[in-house]
Amino acid sequence: MPLDAEIAARLKRGGDGLVPAIVQQHDTGEVLMLAWMDDEALHRTLTTGRATYWSRSRQEYWVKGDTSGHVQYVREVALDCDGDTLLLRVDQVGAACHTGDRTCFDADRLPAVQGAAPEHAEP
Amino acid sequence: MPLDAEIAARLKRGGDGLVPAIVQQHDTGEVLMLAWMDDEALHRTLTTGRATYWSRSRQEYWVKGDTSGHVQYVREVALDCDGDTLLLRVDQVGAACHTGDRTCFDADRLPAVQGAAPEHAEP
Repeated sequence: MPLDAEIAARLKRGGDGLVPAIVQQHDTGEVLMLAWMDDEALHRTLTTGRATYWSRSRQEYWVKGDTSGHVQYVREVALDCDGDTLLLRVDQVGAACHTGDRTCFDADRLPAVQGAAPEHAEP
Repeated sequence: MPLDAEIAARLKRGGDGLVPAIVQQHDTGEVLMLAWMDDEALHRTLTTGRATYWSRSRQEYWVKGDTSGHVQYVREVALDCDGDTLLLRVDQVGAACHTGDRTCFDADRLPAVQGAAPEHAEP
């Protein structure tokens, strides 16, 4: 059974047929990782409750946690205003990152100037 | 002045030269939107404190809020473990979404089976 036709009609895929999926821990709000889905990966994610992606490096479906035990249980899935990005809210078991870090964004902070609203701006 | 060479060497760009940037409200954890950066957009973002993207539809740089007033002041920028995704933590003025919604993921929740850990699983 393929992805629901009404959802498929709203998805805007990249040239490779994939849509980026942002993965967020549902209760803490941590952004855990970004992965990629085709229609079938989204279908499996929506119908099984287990986050399932398309691995661009291995060119195969990938049920998060099947190898590592670091399962992502799906809580919510949202499509963005343009239909070209997904947001998964999940319950992450253990580390989301293959390095063992909780998130894929823990290790490499870039030096950035902090922006701020003008202090004496008129409303 | 181009993007710092050491950062540029770690960036893994897609075929179009772009890297996805997840944008998160720094204090609430809300995922606001996903946008795209090339090296120059990342350089401007890191050095000006204003989130700056490459618009794939308009094929031009886009300083978030220049037209709408809905500025994103940069608080932190992180690169993920693979060097192919950015996470921006920002202070978002007003709505992040062009529809007027606070985030680009507010409007379109997809029907999803919720996953759950087995209730009687052994530890």
